[in-house]
Amino acid sequence: MGAPFKGIIEDVKGRAQCYKQDWICAICSGVSILAPTFYIFFASALPVIAFGEQLNRDTDGSLSTVETLASTAICGVIHSILGGQPLLILGVAEPTVIMYTYLYSFCKNRPEVGEKLFLAWAGWVCVWTAFILILLAIFNACTIITRFTRLAGELFGMLITVLFFQEAIKGLIGEFNTPKNEDPSSVEFQFQWRYTNGLLAIIFCFGLLVTALKSRRARTWRYGTGWLRGFVADYGVPMMVVLWTALSYGVPGKIPHNVPRRLVCPLPWDPESLYHWTVVKDMGKVPLVYIFGAILPALMIAGLYFFDHSVASQMAQQKEFNLQKPSAYHYDILLLGIMTLICGILGLPPSNGVLPQSPMHTKSLAVLRKRLIRKKVVKSAKECIKQQRTNSELYGKMEEVIVEMDTDPTDKELETLKEAVMKSDKRDGTEEKFDPEKHIDAYLPVRVNEQRMTNLLQSLLVGVSILAMSVIKRIPTSVLWGYFAYMAIDSLPGNQFWERILLLFITPSRRFKILEGSHASFVETVPFKTIASFTALQMVYFLVCFGVTWVPIGGILFPVPFFLLVPIREHLLPKLFKPSHLQELDASEYEEIVGAPHGSRMEKEQNGSDSDESSEDFYDAEILDEMTTNRGELKLRSVSSFNDRNHSFNEDRHNQVYPGGGV
Amino acid sequence: MGAPFKGIIEDVKGRAQCYKQDWICAICSGVSILAPTFYIFFASALPVIAFGEQLNRDTDGSLSTVETLASTAICGVIHSILGGQPLLILGVAEPTVIMYTYLYSFCKNRPEVGEKLFLAWAGWVCVWTAFILILLAIFNACTIITRFTRLAGELFGMLITVLFFQEAIKGLIGEFNTPKNEDPSSVEFQFQWRYTNGLLAIIFCFGLLVTALKSRRARTWRYGTGWLRGFVADYGVPMMVVLWTALSYGVPGKIPHNVPRRLVCPLPWDPESLYHWTVVKDMGKVPLVYIFGAILPALMIAGLYFFDHSVASQMAQQKEFNLQKPSAYHYDILLLGIMTLICGILGLPPSNGVLPQSPMHTKSLAVLRKRLIRKKVVKSAKECIKQQRTNSELYGKMEEVIVEMDTDPTDKELETLKEAVMKSDKRDGTEEKFDPEKHIDAYLPVRVNEQRMTNLLQSLLVGVSILAMSVIKRIPTSVLWGYFAYMAIDSLPGNQFWERILLLFITPSRRFKILEGSHASFVETVPFKTIASFTALQMVYFLVCFGVTWVPIGGILFPVPFFLLVPIREHLLPKLFKPSHLQELDASEYEEIVGAPHGSRMEKEQNGSDSDESSEDFYDAEILDEMTTNRGELKLRSVSSFNDRNHSFNEDRHNQVYPGGGV
Repeated sequence: MGAPFKGIIEDVKGRAQCYKQDWICAICSGVSILAPTFYIFFASALPVIAFGEQLNRDTDGSLSTVETLASTAICGVIHSILGGQPLLILGVAEPTVIMYTYLYSFCKNRPEVGEKLFLAWAGWVCVWTAFILILLAIFNACTIITRFTRLAGELFGMLITVLFFQEAIKGLIGEFNTPKNEDPSSVEFQFQWRYTNGLLAIIFCFGLLVTALKSRRARTWRYGTGWLRGFVADYGVPMMVVLWTALSYGVPGKIPHNVPRRLVCPLPWDPESLYHWTVVKDMGKVPLVYIFGAILPALMIAGLYFFDHSVASQMAQQKEFNLQKPSAYHYDILLLGIMTLICGILGLPPSNGVLPQSPMHTKSLAVLRKRLIRKKVVKSAKECIKQQRTNSELYGKMEEVIVEMDTDPTDKELETLKEAVMKSDKRDGTEEKFDPEKHIDAYLPVRVNEQRMTNLLQSLLVGVSILAMSVIKRIPTSVLWGYFAYMAIDSLPGNQFWERILLLFITPSRRFKILEGSHASFVETVPFKTIASFTALQMVYFLVCFGVTWVPIGGILFPVPFFLLVPIREHLLPKLFKPSHLQELDASEYEEIVGAPHGSRMEKEQNGSDSDESSEDFYDAEILDEMTTNRGELKLRSVSSFNDRNHSFNEDRHNQVYPGGGV
Repeated sequence: MGAPFKGIIEDVKGRAQCYKQDWICAICSGVSILAPTFYIFFASALPVIAFGEQLNRDTDGSLSTVETLASTAICGVIHSILGGQPLLILGVAEPTVIMYTYLYSFCKNRPEVGEKLFLAWAGWVCVWTAFILILLAIFNACTIITRFTRLAGELFGMLITVLFFQEAIKGLIGEFNTPKNEDPSSVEFQFQWRYTNGLLAIIFCFGLLVTALKSRRARTWRYGTGWLRGFVADYGVPMMVVLWTALSYGVPGKIPHNVPRRLVCPLPWDPESLYHWTVVKDMGKVPLVYIFGAILPALMIAGLYFFDHSVASQMAQQKEFNLQKPSAYHYDILLLGIMTLICGILGLPPSNGVLPQSPMHTKSLAVLRKRLIRKKVVKSAKECIKQQRTNSELYGKMEEVIVEMDTDPTDKELETLKEAVMKSDKRDGTEEKFDPEKHIDAYLPVRVNEQRMTNLLQSLLVGVSILAMSVIKRIPTSVLWGYFAYMAIDSLPGNQFWERILLLFITPSRRFKILEGSHASFVETVPFKTIASFTALQMVYFLVCFGVTWVPIGGILFPVPFFLLVPIREHLLPKLFKPSHLQELDASEYEEIVGAPHGSRMEKEQNGSDSDESSEDFYDAEILDEMTTNRGELKLRSVSSFNDRNHSFNEDRHNQVYPGGGV
């Protein structure tokens, strides 16, 4: 564990050195920084709005979209300015919503606290959570997150997925019923209009779900220009929310107002929202026993936040991104504790690092940066080739450009590029010459524009959107249920637990279909029976975890089974499965094997003649899309090899930090 | 043209010789003949029901589902017993429905005829149509159908597709309005229930559309056993109609009866249906000028039927199916004339040969037959290999089995197989030995179980389904609109006109995606600019054709632009395009080039170890599915070759019969 404060001090020292640079880098990029800003803003704001509506229903309006947006904005601004790792995106996440729902249903039934003191008591929970988080930071607890393996992360991811589905279904069914706290005698709650509302909800919900899923995959569409496809892929989901909201205004005027139902939440200047500023006064009114009782939920929340925050941070800093600036895990947990305290006192649900937005953020900055470098390098290389320079001159020129663009390319990277350029010279005429258009991608170092501006701007945009609540309120609730279903489905690909479940439904004769395409490495290295029994075991455990969430108040202990996975993984599982198999199934990285060749011959043939600006611009974004799971985890690609079945066993893997999804 | 009656006499002679065999073959197959029977019954009955509903709306109930089913059943039974080519499936098709709609709207506005004498006048149209068809048969006109090229066939197919979409959209919009001939003051036509009905219609329509499209592609699913996937692919669409009909009964009881709306049509024993038996009596009441005026629509219908019937017949007899029994084009047209006469006199809309059901019929019989032969041959070959016989012994055994199973294998086919078996012996150890499991498919002759039983049974089933009208009436109309949309979308893949339109929307840099997958040969052999201008021209012509259908009564001439395509294709187009390009774009066959290799290495590897019964059983059905367009046209597969760009120019193609889609 090391000496107290050791981690925090090191983190602060490391980040302080590049703090100025964090701002300068952003200013140098100019206007182009706005693209990733808006991209992350939409990716981050939409779920927060949806969670706000969920909280609103589950806490009878004590908390709503205004509070979730406010928390996200405040924590985002604080983190972007004072945070250690500015690539990390903060927001109110599903675990917070679930926890607050348990807290509320606990309070509601105790007259000593009641609905009135709910926020005050939740404030105490936040105080304790902050205390625990700060302790964890001081005692360098971040070193232990390696014990949480893929198993726990993916199981938790699956739980969130199922809860999203549950929310979508519950919401959709609710559209057919009269909501509580509403007057059932009013026109819009007459049977025929409730039924109409329900039918409209089905249409909007599935409409949003299908169009969002389609537009998400726009980058792989065959039709349309690269720019259009890229735009739809990046902004399609918010666009679809806007589209379906607009369509919802197409209902005839004869239908009663409020069919279809839209978000119900107070505006930020309504008394319900203003009450939050005085929550701190009520905190003194909470009975002492409840103040200390708040330690139990605080333990759960602190545990969840600690791991979620660290894992989101890790995923934003995967080694394939080639970040140049240091990490700050310990310091960020400290700051998270402080932010939780602030949120608790303000009566807001706290924010923490979110997935998949954090790795999405890094990815979008990597694409931006890479595109800039690539253009310059290709241009200079082409000029050299035109002037028929030698390859060493060519390399020299390319190095010059890279060094100019890049703050600090490593020697190894430059070495690889040099080798590639030189080698093409030595071979005789049958081998093709070094063609910058084709070959530069493989040797170009990945660079992320590491700065604080996108995070700050997107947090400010979230803050501004609170003022636009009157516009946000126009979104039909059914569109949000569709969005929950979208989030659920979108989180499945890349979750190896899910992929293994699907594998069980493939008949043996069809398994070649899996091997034909890209597939996770365990498919080849672990016997099918082992995969099946491991998955069945995980499924049973998952059902237990899901069952716990249904327990009325004990449900608040739902993180416990996930914490228990640490000893289970370390002591029990190695007795049931071979260590090598376990290592593959619970690998720290998403290792993917390329199946059948992807028609590379043709591709080259075409690229030579037809490649134009638009393909150049979006090509790498598409590749990055293909190379990451939907949670933002980068896949390690290796060529399929039936003969070399042990190729994916690395000695150092077992103790590596798991970057596969948070708890 | 040849001497009158020459074609008919030859056809009758040819088919008479194998008439007895046509029945014996079926009886030998036993119960397994029921699978293709039910398959074709569902594929044939569903559109007939949908067309019946369309006719019902467009003729204000003069004709309905009972009549379309009756016509299909009567003509089917006649054709299966007396017809020349028993593989041809008959049914009421969209052109008939369109024509009858024009006839009705013409009659309605003439007081001399009116709605009352509509069927009698339509009877006269049928009489003239029959007369023209019989003349065409006598004078061997079938020899001229080669002049109708892919251009005309696909343009017509596209028109039908657009009309299907139009029908789906019209129907869906109609669900929000009060239907004519209904009492607008009744409860279910109050605004709120009309709106509810419309919303339910949207849900059922899109629900059917999406699920039907998904289940259609079940054979390529990754999940589930081969048997299940095959079953869903073959019967999924009718299953989905049943499913959505069942779901439509899930609406709460408080909703008025008849929301959602269901088929409105008289039962076969209702007076409206019984009237048809007396239409012949009314035929005398039609004024003389109208009797002779009926020649004009009769000319149109005869032209359409002549080509549709012949092309459907051709598509059912494509040379890749390797049929052993003779064709009977001339005789079948004669019989079509007689059947049209019978239908006209009975007041029924006539039936003709339908696409894609006719080639689907042949395909289903080919799969059945191939599976039987394959099993026996592989079994005997394996036995021989086990006993370590020489390859000539092996071949002898295989030949024996094939001859036993097959009525008449050609010498050439056996020669190819022999060569394959023998060759594997001569090569040394590095080459793999002849493995029956892997290699037999390529050498096994395709055989179709040519018989009359499936056609007879499916026609009888259609007849029986008339008695089940009270069940059919439970289908919500909205499900049928979804089915129209399904038919429209399902008819698009494989239509080269459509594929060329899509090609225009692919940016140059993405065209490699087309070349990567299987693609029509013209993509490689014709310059893009030529493809674009040809497609643009076709598009304009298509819009003209579509425009004609909107002309109130002159719309009846809508087949004229298609007939005009014969001189246009022969005289005008060769002046605008290079003959070689024209030949590729308007090719008589769907030639497809295999793009990137399909991971065959893996497939083999897997097949060796994992292939089980179920894969064996359905493998060839899946291949056949992949090898045919959705209209039932077989694709010619050839390996992609950039160097040999002229490989697809065959000398004999230009004058070949076009099997690509009917007019």
